[in-house]
Amino acid sequence: MATQTAERQKVTAEEYVEILGFYARQCRLMDALKIEEFAGTFTEDGVIDHAHRGERLAGREAMVAAMRAALPRYRSVVPRHWFDHYLVEKTEDGWRVDYVCLVTRTDATGKVDFEPTFTVVDELVRTETGEIRTRERVIDQDRPAS
Amino acid sequence: MATQTAERQKVTAEEYVEILGFYARQCRLMDALKIEEFAGTFTEDGVIDHAHRGERLAGREAMVAAMRAALPRYRSVVPRHWFDHYLVEKTEDGWRVDYVCLVTRTDATGKVDFEPTFTVVDELVRTETGEIRTRERVIDQDRPAS
Amino acid sequence: MATQTAERQKVTAEEYVEILGFYARQCRLMDALKIEEFAGTFTEDGVIDHAHRGERLAGREAMVAAMRAALPRYRSVVPRHWFDHYLVEKTEDGWRVDYVCLVTRTDATGKVDFEPTFTVVDELVRTETGEIRTRERVIDQDRPAS
Repeated sequence: MATQTAERQKVTAEEYVEILGFYARQCRLMDALKIEEFAGTFTEDGVIDHAHRGERLAGREAMVAAMRAALPRYRSVVPRHWFDHYLVEKTEDGWRVDYVCLVTRTDATGKVDFEPTFTVVDELVRTETGEIRTRERVIDQDRPAS
Repeated sequence: MATQTAERQKVTAEEYVEILGFYARQCRLMDALKIEEFAGTFTEDGVIDHAHRGERLAGREAMVAAMRAALPRYRSVVPRHWFDHYLVEKTEDGWRVDYVCLVTRTDATGKVDFEPTFTVVDELVRTETGEIRTRERVIDQDRPAS
Repeated sequence: MATQTAERQKVTAEEYVEILGFYARQCRLMDALKIEEFAGTFTEDGVIDHAHRGERLAGREAMVAAMRAALPRYRSVVPRHWFDHYLVEKTEDGWRVDYVCLVTRTDATGKVDFEPTFTVVDELVRTETGEIRTRERVIDQDRPAS
């Protein structure tokens, strides 16, 4: 039984590469501040949970509203999200992906500064039309324990 | 027809991993300032286009000359280029790869500073001897729109 | 003969993805300061060689002791290690993996600072129970030649 579970959770290289491609596209949309298109990479009832500040955005409409409110922060910089160390596990209808994230902001003079690092846990699903979508994203800012 | 195009553009995991290996080697040569060997990872008529400063280097010889002129900037630091979010599409004789790049410079005391982030679009080709080479690279520095 | 060597050194996408998963887990343990569990991702006689400071830790016990001594440095921050540009080669009983590393430290206020960048060369082995373990790790801090 344990073996079957392990078997079921094994992700193929083809799936892994497809998931990396999904994140590359999703991240490009986010960093280009293409808010509606970014929200479109989530399921219609998708959730973004900013665990560290107790903010839970349920549904694309709520995501778009929250991102629109945050836009002024990104008006004078180009944000970039850098992902690493994907832990990918198969689930019943997709994958659970756990990764770490660094955020840069480059201003007009070329100066780079940094937002706090964080961890992300995503629930990805394969839709009926074969696309990958994020159903739930839990974001947690890195904070020292003490 | 659309389906055939999609089919044709799908990159296998084996190709994806081979391309990552190509970038790992190419980037190591660049960061080690092995200029001639780096230029050798391009086709003989390869091009590097620094879109953000209107500089177009055509051919390995021009690349080597430009890199040699830039060497003093890197004399007292170790540069490292960090790539992420590869978008890979098959082309007729290779791949189009679109990615983002962060550059660190570590000095003798261990202090790290950063060059502006940028995006890169590469045209990679498979040569007759089976090697991957870059035929064209377009580099664009991240600049806020406003 | 050269062909056979090249053949033998070719890493499959499945192996590559498995190795990335190994690093994702190992790195998470290291950054969570789960020292014993991190040491457990090495072979019993595993070695960490900090080439740049002439420190060679042989065996899990020595690793644990050295990491425990370094803990105070990480008490008020969350460290994150970011890896890139893996060069993976098959060996007789595993793989040789060469990569670059950036280290961030995020403090309680969200401020991020950086340790010097470095290169790592790992000797990974497949154990009899099918797990990947690190047998030797050589770490070298980036220092300008002049």
